[in-house]
Amino acid sequence: MSFKLTILGSNSAIPKENRNPTSQVLSFDEKCFLIDCGEGTQIQLRKYQIRFQRISHIFISHLHGDHYFGLIGLITSMHLLGRERDLHIYAHENLKKIIDSQLDASKTVLSYPLFFHSISENYEGVLFEDNKICISTFLLNHGILCNGFLFQEKILHRKILSKKIQQYNVPHDEIIKLQSGNDFFCKETSKKISNEELTVPNRNPFSYAFCSDTKYNELIVDKIKDVTVLYHEATFMIKHKDRASVTNHSTSEDAALIAKKADVKCLLIGHFSQRYSNYENLLLESKSIFSNTMVADQGLELDFHQL
Amino acid sequence: MSFKLTILGSNSAIPKENRNPTSQVLSFDEKCFLIDCGEGTQIQLRKYQIRFQRISHIFISHLHGDHYFGLIGLITSMHLLGRERDLHIYAHENLKKIIDSQLDASKTVLSYPLFFHSISENYEGVLFEDNKICISTFLLNHGILCNGFLFQEKILHRKILSKKIQQYNVPHDEIIKLQSGNDFFCKETSKKISNEELTVPNRNPFSYAFCSDTKYNELIVDKIKDVTVLYHEATFMIKHKDRASVTNHSTSEDAALIAKKADVKCLLIGHFSQRYSNYENLLLESKSIFSNTMVADQGLELDFHQL
Repeated sequence: MSFKLTILGSNSAIPKENRNPTSQVLSFDEKCFLIDCGEGTQIQLRKYQIRFQRISHIFISHLHGDHYFGLIGLITSMHLLGRERDLHIYAHENLKKIIDSQLDASKTVLSYPLFFHSISENYEGVLFEDNKICISTFLLNHGILCNGFLFQEKILHRKILSKKIQQYNVPHDEIIKLQSGNDFFCKETSKKISNEELTVPNRNPFSYAFCSDTKYNELIVDKIKDVTVLYHEATFMIKHKDRASVTNHSTSEDAALIAKKADVKCLLIGHFSQRYSNYENLLLESKSIFSNTMVADQGLELDFHQL
Repeated sequence: MSFKLTILGSNSAIPKENRNPTSQVLSFDEKCFLIDCGEGTQIQLRKYQIRFQRISHIFISHLHGDHYFGLIGLITSMHLLGRERDLHIYAHENLKKIIDSQLDASKTVLSYPLFFHSISENYEGVLFEDNKICISTFLLNHGILCNGFLFQEKILHRKILSKKIQQYNVPHDEIIKLQSGNDFFCKETSKKISNEELTVPNRNPFSYAFCSDTKYNELIVDKIKDVTVLYHEATFMIKHKDRASVTNHSTSEDAALIAKKADVKCLLIGHFSQRYSNYENLLLESKSIFSNTMVADQGLELDFHQL
């Protein structure tokens, strides 16, 4: 089951050439989740050859422009390209009014069903769930309502040992039960074969936490505990921590401390201020506290199976 | 006096990498007019090194997204960069509601005065005028309300012949009158010196007409008669004229016929459908009817003094 993150942009609010604002794609199994959608996201999708119509769910963290100004363009292009399948958007309710006013202005009736799921002011909990993944939200601390998102793969079925299945002549309809951890009762021999003899555990489920934008906030530590990958904004270097405080953003140190306390496997930092011409020092600062830090450089493809 | 057009983008609605939607900058004297503002315009401004804060007036032709989805990002970036000078926007009133709802959603109070000038439904006439330029609007035919824009430099002062000025000892305060075409009365000799002896005519004023988007519409011919440069959309090749008709767009032939009838000096075509991988055939078709046609390729800088 694929679990891959692609960074489309990780710049902060003021745009620079070749440094796009926040947007990410999480490809999971057959699904494609878009997380934030700054201006130019549809061009980035083309650049990295991710088909618009594969995107089924879009999650918008908050209504600062660098996180959603590209959404209406993407919605409209999906329509112009004749999309028919459902699109689900999860965001603060004000975004619905903004989308509607822009569709009304051009008298556009979308070619596909768009389901807007309002995230209420203080809601923390599940947004979407199926038999393979659970996506939930938690509150960040950024001056205006801002949501983090947690993508948790569900516990994977135990792996069948095919040689043992043949040896004990396990019928097909018993295999699903074995995958769920049940023992096997062999009618021919009237013996119980323990699950451990017929299966082995699968890998641990992957999980991904997206935290943008936020000031240092220890309240999130329990909510993102032990995730495989944490994306945490690190707009500023430590020397600009006063600026981080004023603007409700984090430093590279803040991001690393949260990663360390939450005991995550890997930290991705991004949303860098346009004042930094490269990210080396931000990375060094973070690595000095949490060594397994990476930069969420645009174009980065992170295959969770390779971590 | 500078009079220069820069094409920031000339693609039609569905975006392609490296082919931006419609936006143009007309630099005139000390002023900088932005015409339409598709998604990604602020990045194009950076790319072509046009400073955001130089832009004083923005004209939006209509509320299809490929002509204005980049505006809110530009407005916001001007704010984040600490702009203080006035910004004037001319567009249909619905755009004001869209801008306001997006500023409200992020609780943004702009650092500069933004004056929104609503263009009424059937208005044709002057939008802006000073002592050097007159900018007016006229109606296009595009299914939804769509405005063309005409930029007309005012008649230029006659050029003073400095040797003659010295010869007749013309005082400084009389020179302005000479520039306006008056004769000079010499008190010392009690003789009238004709204006033609002291001045020569200046060049003809420049003018620029912007027509995007529209189906073939002969009603505009009189309004753009004799302009120096006409930009006219040419979304489709002649073989796709049925598609042009259905979508209220023009073919390369339509654009050329309008240019010919209006007797313009130079025609710029743009807003090309994404189905064409290059513009050569569109250009050939237009040139066969109106030879002085150019492609409004993004990055093109057209200095009217060089035409």
